[in-house]
Amino acid sequence: MPTEFEFIQNLKQKYGLRHVGDDCAVLPKDASTEQVVTADMLVENVDFRLGWTTPESLGHKALAVSLSDVAAMGAEPKWAMVSIAAPESLWKAGFVERFYEGWFELAHKYGVDLVGGDVSGTPDGLVIDSIVGGEVPRGKAVLRSGARPGDSIYVSGSLGGAAGGLALLERGVDVSGNNALIIEKQLKPRPQVELGKLLQQLQIATSIIDISDGLSSDLAHICESSGVGARIYAERLPINKDLQTFFSNNEAFLMALNGGEDFELIFTSREKNILLPESVQITRIGEVTANVGNIELIDGEKSTILVPKGYRHF
Amino acid sequence: MPTEFEFIQNLKQKYGLRHVGDDCAVLPKDASTEQVVTADMLVENVDFRLGWTTPESLGHKALAVSLSDVAAMGAEPKWAMVSIAAPESLWKAGFVERFYEGWFELAHKYGVDLVGGDVSGTPDGLVIDSIVGGEVPRGKAVLRSGARPGDSIYVSGSLGGAAGGLALLERGVDVSGNNALIIEKQLKPRPQVELGKLLQQLQIATSIIDISDGLSSDLAHICESSGVGARIYAERLPINKDLQTFFSNNEAFLMALNGGEDFELIFTSREKNILLPESVQITRIGEVTANVGNIELIDGEKSTILVPKGYRHF
Repeated sequence: MPTEFEFIQNLKQKYGLRHVGDDCAVLPKDASTEQVVTADMLVENVDFRLGWTTPESLGHKALAVSLSDVAAMGAEPKWAMVSIAAPESLWKAGFVERFYEGWFELAHKYGVDLVGGDVSGTPDGLVIDSIVGGEVPRGKAVLRSGARPGDSIYVSGSLGGAAGGLALLERGVDVSGNNALIIEKQLKPRPQVELGKLLQQLQIATSIIDISDGLSSDLAHICESSGVGARIYAERLPINKDLQTFFSNNEAFLMALNGGEDFELIFTSREKNILLPESVQITRIGEVTANVGNIELIDGEKSTILVPKGYRHF
Repeated sequence: MPTEFEFIQNLKQKYGLRHVGDDCAVLPKDASTEQVVTADMLVENVDFRLGWTTPESLGHKALAVSLSDVAAMGAEPKWAMVSIAAPESLWKAGFVERFYEGWFELAHKYGVDLVGGDVSGTPDGLVIDSIVGGEVPRGKAVLRSGARPGDSIYVSGSLGGAAGGLALLERGVDVSGNNALIIEKQLKPRPQVELGKLLQQLQIATSIIDISDGLSSDLAHICESSGVGARIYAERLPINKDLQTFFSNNEAFLMALNGGEDFELIFTSREKNILLPESVQITRIGEVTANVGNIELIDGEKSTILVPKGYRHF
């Protein structure tokens, strides 16, 4: 069975799809503007578990994952649609109303309008499809394909928190108190909308992707799209500091390297020193190389070629 | 538990949604054009059964239902996204590839580009979300809200075929031979894309809606949005002629009146005689009245107030 990535590659080739393969499709809008659109499906017991999340957090996350795709184009989100198939028990329990409360709280933060969608019952589990449309100045959408050897590689925020939160949820750890902070990284991720737009406005990013599958996998997507390689330095990874309370150094490192759903941005730039507002934390973790398709991990004296481990299979 | 219609009305009021409530949302595009967008979710064992449809037909129908929404705005479809959550057994059996073959066959007919979407596994049943974007000259989208007393009411094509097809499938009737024609009305509906665009270009429709829930329900939506009533004549309904092979006259009549998923267009017009190309069949079935919210059915000497029976509940 093909992976999700392979399946989409096959469709792309078979049907000559020009707009598929980045975080969003870029479509013409007007003389000075392009539109970006993206859709993300969240499936019960694949992407979330009802026992682990509140309805409000799920509403937040459903929108956040799509806002993150818009951010990864350097675009500004404008409108959204939500399609939701929910079993009768959730409709009756008021789950769907609370889902929309969480959704709108995040939508209002970014001035995103709900313009449509669909609501349905289902005899099975909850399924949500989140669609967001955004805008970007014409020709300025930042693709995955612009990285060039010599560019520096940056990531925003910290890494591994969402994977750590997931591990705690899987262990059945109490979600209150200090644990809540890291679990929130998994349940209520913060999309990097301001950073994405800023990178586009400053025109300093040669490529951007968001971390949905994991640093190693998503950096591999940039390498594949750009026809380049990458070298990253283990000691530079901004590992989420809260991980050390629960996990060994090695576990935390692997979560930062391979863990999905941090929804931080990876970007490449010709600039070696980037000054951004204090509210935005970015870390230079390595550089783009001409070693096409290979990601080298430098750990002290040791150099290894990474095998991407974050792909989500069906 | 609220109906789908009530749930959306509640959301609209609670969050002040300006773009929700027609077949598509109408969004600004450029100086001369507006964009329309729509999303439709198809849920296994709610909207379709795997035992009744081929993968190709399901791909066709997933796109057709959204194209029908675009047609009901008088707009031209341009791009689409598909999100699909399918169980491992369907991935392995090549079902999803065949689904896309049916999807693309219809998409190519209308020059619609697949620009994105999502693919996922699921432990449960198949769920598809179909998103289509289209374009219409600025200010020319035909809404549900423009019908005025005295307008004539028209429907395209014939009515009840999709409901008849569904009834045959439920009875387990053999799908080959002559039965195939009516069953295809259910499984491979033809969206009225050309007619929708033509009505907009000719500027003769004061309102349009597509028949997804059933003539009585969808006409009620026009009445509610326009603040009007309607009178329709039983003997004028263009009942699908193939129904008479399988059903009594009364059964066929009720299917034409209340049956969903014909994906024909209902429209209102000041014109009493409309000349369209021969390929387009339309029938004048009644007129808009000032009897707000009421639909009168005139059957010979008898007049009854219709209770819409086609609403799809959760």
